[in-house]
Amino acid sequence: MTDKLSVVGKSVTRFDAVDKVTGKAKYGIDLKVEGMLYGKILRSPYPHARVIKIDTRRAENHPRVRAVTTINDVPKITGAIGHLMTQEGRDHLYLHDNIVRFIGDPIAAVAADDLEAAQDALSLIHVEYEELPAVFDPVEAMKDGAPVIHTEDNNIAFHVLKEIGELDQGLEETDHVFEERYYTSKQKHATMEPTSSCVADYSQNGRLSVYSSTQRPHVSKLYLAKAFDLPVSKVRIIKPYTGGAFGGRDYLIHGLEIMCTSLSMKSGSPVKISFTREEDFIATEARHPFIIDLRFGVTDDGILKAMEMKCVMDVGGYGAHAAGVMTNALTKGVLIYKCPNITFEGHSVYTNKALCGAYRGYGNPQINFAIESLMDQIAEKLGIDAVELRLKNYRGLNELDPLSGQRIESDGMTECIEKAAEKFDWIGREKRKVANGTKRTGTGMCCLIHHSGGRFAIPDPAAATVMFNSDGSVNLVTAAADEGQGNRTVLAQIAAETLGLDYEQVSISSEPDTDMTPFDSGTHGSRQTYAGGIAVKRAAEKAKDKLLDLAAQHLEARKDDLRIGDGFIFHVDNPSINILVSDLLTALQFEDLSKGIQVMGTSTGVAPAVPTIYGANFAEVEVDMATGEVRILKFVCAFDVGKAINPAHVEGQIIGGEVTGMGYALTEGLITKDGKIMNPNFGDYRMLRACDVPKIDAIIVESPEPSGPFGAKGVGEATNAGTAAVIANAIYDAVGVRIEDLPLSQEKILHSL
Amino acid sequence: MTDKLSVVGKSVTRFDAVDKVTGKAKYGIDLKVEGMLYGKILRSPYPHARVIKIDTRRAENHPRVRAVTTINDVPKITGAIGHLMTQEGRDHLYLHDNIVRFIGDPIAAVAADDLEAAQDALSLIHVEYEELPAVFDPVEAMKDGAPVIHTEDNNIAFHVLKEIGELDQGLEETDHVFEERYYTSKQKHATMEPTSSCVADYSQNGRLSVYSSTQRPHVSKLYLAKAFDLPVSKVRIIKPYTGGAFGGRDYLIHGLEIMCTSLSMKSGSPVKISFTREEDFIATEARHPFIIDLRFGVTDDGILKAMEMKCVMDVGGYGAHAAGVMTNALTKGVLIYKCPNITFEGHSVYTNKALCGAYRGYGNPQINFAIESLMDQIAEKLGIDAVELRLKNYRGLNELDPLSGQRIESDGMTECIEKAAEKFDWIGREKRKVANGTKRTGTGMCCLIHHSGGRFAIPDPAAATVMFNSDGSVNLVTAAADEGQGNRTVLAQIAAETLGLDYEQVSISSEPDTDMTPFDSGTHGSRQTYAGGIAVKRAAEKAKDKLLDLAAQHLEARKDDLRIGDGFIFHVDNPSINILVSDLLTALQFEDLSKGIQVMGTSTGVAPAVPTIYGANFAEVEVDMATGEVRILKFVCAFDVGKAINPAHVEGQIIGGEVTGMGYALTEGLITKDGKIMNPNFGDYRMLRACDVPKIDAIIVESPEPSGPFGAKGVGEATNAGTAAVIANAIYDAVGVRIEDLPLSQEKILHSL
Repeated sequence: MTDKLSVVGKSVTRFDAVDKVTGKAKYGIDLKVEGMLYGKILRSPYPHARVIKIDTRRAENHPRVRAVTTINDVPKITGAIGHLMTQEGRDHLYLHDNIVRFIGDPIAAVAADDLEAAQDALSLIHVEYEELPAVFDPVEAMKDGAPVIHTEDNNIAFHVLKEIGELDQGLEETDHVFEERYYTSKQKHATMEPTSSCVADYSQNGRLSVYSSTQRPHVSKLYLAKAFDLPVSKVRIIKPYTGGAFGGRDYLIHGLEIMCTSLSMKSGSPVKISFTREEDFIATEARHPFIIDLRFGVTDDGILKAMEMKCVMDVGGYGAHAAGVMTNALTKGVLIYKCPNITFEGHSVYTNKALCGAYRGYGNPQINFAIESLMDQIAEKLGIDAVELRLKNYRGLNELDPLSGQRIESDGMTECIEKAAEKFDWIGREKRKVANGTKRTGTGMCCLIHHSGGRFAIPDPAAATVMFNSDGSVNLVTAAADEGQGNRTVLAQIAAETLGLDYEQVSISSEPDTDMTPFDSGTHGSRQTYAGGIAVKRAAEKAKDKLLDLAAQHLEARKDDLRIGDGFIFHVDNPSINILVSDLLTALQFEDLSKGIQVMGTSTGVAPAVPTIYGANFAEVEVDMATGEVRILKFVCAFDVGKAINPAHVEGQIIGGEVTGMGYALTEGLITKDGKIMNPNFGDYRMLRACDVPKIDAIIVESPEPSGPFGAKGVGEATNAGTAAVIANAIYDAVGVRIEDLPLSQEKILHSL
Repeated sequence: MTDKLSVVGKSVTRFDAVDKVTGKAKYGIDLKVEGMLYGKILRSPYPHARVIKIDTRRAENHPRVRAVTTINDVPKITGAIGHLMTQEGRDHLYLHDNIVRFIGDPIAAVAADDLEAAQDALSLIHVEYEELPAVFDPVEAMKDGAPVIHTEDNNIAFHVLKEIGELDQGLEETDHVFEERYYTSKQKHATMEPTSSCVADYSQNGRLSVYSSTQRPHVSKLYLAKAFDLPVSKVRIIKPYTGGAFGGRDYLIHGLEIMCTSLSMKSGSPVKISFTREEDFIATEARHPFIIDLRFGVTDDGILKAMEMKCVMDVGGYGAHAAGVMTNALTKGVLIYKCPNITFEGHSVYTNKALCGAYRGYGNPQINFAIESLMDQIAEKLGIDAVELRLKNYRGLNELDPLSGQRIESDGMTECIEKAAEKFDWIGREKRKVANGTKRTGTGMCCLIHHSGGRFAIPDPAAATVMFNSDGSVNLVTAAADEGQGNRTVLAQIAAETLGLDYEQVSISSEPDTDMTPFDSGTHGSRQTYAGGIAVKRAAEKAKDKLLDLAAQHLEARKDDLRIGDGFIFHVDNPSINILVSDLLTALQFEDLSKGIQVMGTSTGVAPAVPTIYGANFAEVEVDMATGEVRILKFVCAFDVGKAINPAHVEGQIIGGEVTGMGYALTEGLITKDGKIMNPNFGDYRMLRACDVPKIDAIIVESPEPSGPFGAKGVGEATNAGTAAVIANAIYDAVGVRIEDLPLSQEKILHSL
């Protein structure tokens, strides 16, 4: 093997592409298991109530109903994997009570022979409620005397205060103080395939199999084992093809798998529950809305001396990700600029509103919108070029991360900014400015960071097994979940490159199955290419090392003298001493009857670091002052991914992420009135359509991460973190109006004008 | 862990028992894959012909037909895994030609939307044949001038001559020479679930998935990869529940998976083919009929001095197992008695008859019937008790196996014979003799050996992976195929015992999947408890060793001082130094964020030996001299299994095996006329019914095998090896008629009387 890369860096076709375009690939929503029943969930019409009585007798007597379950039978899961760390934490995850906390909170579920009967039977369940006072505004919810949603004390699901340096002193020593408040919206994943579909199949032999589109099969397995008091080994998660996740399928869906399992246990049959699109909108997680107060102190020449960030995050009725998302907002807020004095305070607050949870970016799009809006103001005020201001302040190579203490080992920020600025013609932006009737154009930029994995904050194991076949081809075994982004293809490329094989020689199955794959913490935090890739590379290196050991014995050579290339293992100084890899493997496995060895390698563990991904966005917009309408004319972005294992995949990630970022910026957001979501459908919840989206110039920057597989970091969640800010900045540049409340809707712009 | 066994030796309920009795378990024949087509096979009406032309146009134009394939598109597989050893051997496995060699040989196959259309379309295929001269008798087939079925030279598929000592000298030095000829029948597996059902699903992305009830998933994977020129990694075999195999599902079924795959490739859809019961009888493998000539030389006191065995084996139209079965007959024939001068010669001969292949016992029931019939004659002639004669001659502890050179390390023969004789009341047998009207009773005995695995003769790798979950439960990963005998339950017991866990804490999935399991050569040769068990034990020991390493670090203790018990790891001298296994695992996997380690162990390799299984059968029969009817009054058998991991499973194996042995002895056998099977159904092919079978007293003898897991050997194939002989001997004792031609039918007995 030479240092020249032959598989990594190539845009190979993903292994499942043909199956996807021909319709052969079966998604969660397509699942059919023989003898399967259909389940439906009865949901609370009240934002806050005590369930006094659930009378299921009439539903149970329905001739086509096979089982009914209720919240009295099953727990609710209230937290995420961070809490798995201690036994006590694990116990607190599982809430057994009779309170409903948002409109749509599951109360009961029915399994019937067909969907119609299940739907009918829901109306036969009589529920007696005691309405409780509700609170919808997180600021109100924090006040004394507010209705308490979870504990006796207050509605604070999570609080964090991080102080670096001396904020007050920093503010005093500075020349200018900038202070603003920002609001962000409640964006919904609205994946192509509705988020919530599963089949639970409990067998009386004590084993539970669940087909679930979870991003984290092994984590879902842990949760279900605990919820139903089963040995972890008796729970099996099989993941079908998945039509987009973006955080929306992080471990379990509220009420879905647990109610479905309970129905399967009671009926003795497999049960499928698929949420309707409306249920998907009202009863699954969305991006947390934030209220962010910033106060930044800057010197005359634009050096940040003090940053105060106060965040209030509305977590809705249950606190899944209450800690995680706030912590990630903290991390991104603290780490983007190397300011010496930073205070970050966050409150995650329960309200009687629909669920919030993990959504691509995970707190970063919120904090980035605020910071990068404010940085734009600062640049303007101080008369410093926006690009220049970022380059002066960002935290780059060899800086210490004050949160984890790790040193930054790769830094592509300058290259991202410079390459994107050049492509965008940032210098020529003023010349391009157009005022045409009521239309004005403007430009803006922003930068951003993200990270790969959560290895310093949460349990984040990755694992892989590499198995050589006798013909030299390889099966790669990993539980890494692919939501459509192609990460299993990328992992196969990493295995092929490490082993000196063609991509076609490595096979990876489409569906992770927890019965047969070692523990992987799943697909979250832009970690699979990096942390998953490290596990695959280590496993492949172990297999390769073993192969060379055996080759050395076979060829009677020193292992260090052997190389692999073109299907051969050969002596570096005397290539006539060689053997075909497949011949060696065949000899070991089949010809030498005393061996029967399969050459394999397995790796489990964590990645050594949490590398920083850098990115920069540049946008040019046209605003119609008569209507408030915004059109994005030009969009250039660059991301430092360390090494693009598969450039086409990276580009796909960037474009996909930026498009959801544009929706976040301009149109998206669930509208809630008295706890009720008013736009739970694609008619009223306005996502961008293809015709709304400009050409996106995606630039890949490669600043190799020493700890990454072939230098790779990640990219997924970085790609929508800065979109709202760059568009806000460009709108301001066009019409002088700065909207600090997402989305930057036509109405708000018109109103501000 | 103490030396006391807590899981091994217990008749735990098999993990899939409930699913099987409730009908939840889905078998190959139940398989439904979405979008699946139905395939049917067109078969040759001639025993030997050249296919001149296959006109499939009319079938292709059938509106519901989606694909047609023919023998011009696909190869035939003509050998078994022994031939996988060299590339040259592998190539010879795949026969591409236009000759059909038996009535039922596949010619073409059709895939249609429904079974009816597929069946109809077969009649639309026009085949032009040139009939070739056929030969049905193996002795005729060996003669010069016989029609040649495969090669230019002759019809000898396999020839072996093994000479130990000096036969002629042995015969000269002896006091008595006995010489007889025996014939055995062509027994059919006739499994509860018809043997042949598969779904092939080829994806245009180059991957082939086959749901197959194969006993050897990884071997089937190799064959299919080679047949279709795919990397081995691109072929995936998933094994559903299986309703009995007994050798009939050894790797591929003639024409089934290959035609099915070809149809899937052509149609782009998954295709299912299930043979009818009649197809199962005429076109899948059966037990090879043998003609056996024995010449034994014995001293006055019953010591064997010379054994000549000459076997002619009819392999039918294709030579699958032509070498394997003959070699196994050789092994069992040579190794049962420690005679100094042995000559064994075997000819496996092609005929234009239906297929023969692997069937439980694999050559042993044939040779054992001959040897143990002759031994009975010798005992009578020399006036030596039949039991005594065996005890004088059998090859036991510390004897060297003259074929492999291995030393016999465990020997339960004497105990088998003595315990069974006692239970049977062998001594009192003469007193029990009854002559009642036309009815006469008689008794007989025989002994037998078998072996576990084929590690000295064929590639026989086994592998397993053990993965600890954070709660201390374990997932066991192995490709060991369970045909219903429960070997996956047994492997889970071995893992649990090795790890000091409860059986309930170990989980093993019901369906092996070659994408995610290391190579196991499959379920054959009574090897899974032994060779599979060794792999599981080694993998578990590695995991345990790793766990203790990590515990030693954690407890700051020396690893050697640590023990595992009752869910704890503790210091042997100071038990207050301890940690719950689950706490340690949770710490390693989740709490210590720098680790994220899953404790695992994997083992690949071969078993160190091929241990001998011993057995003895005793039977008492009643023969009606007026009708020739035989009734088995009493049946006692004992088998030395080394250690019964699950005694109920062992008993189940013994009883099941003896019942098929009784059918082999008395009634079973395919009747062929001019190459056509005359009794391809359960009406005409007479299997024993429950009311025909006596109570079977199964005695388990445990002579621990040092190399086996907890001393275990195997048992499966030993259980029907001696049944024909013991019944023949008892019939002779009852009525003085010795039938040397299986089955010992009512007609033959009546005729002889």
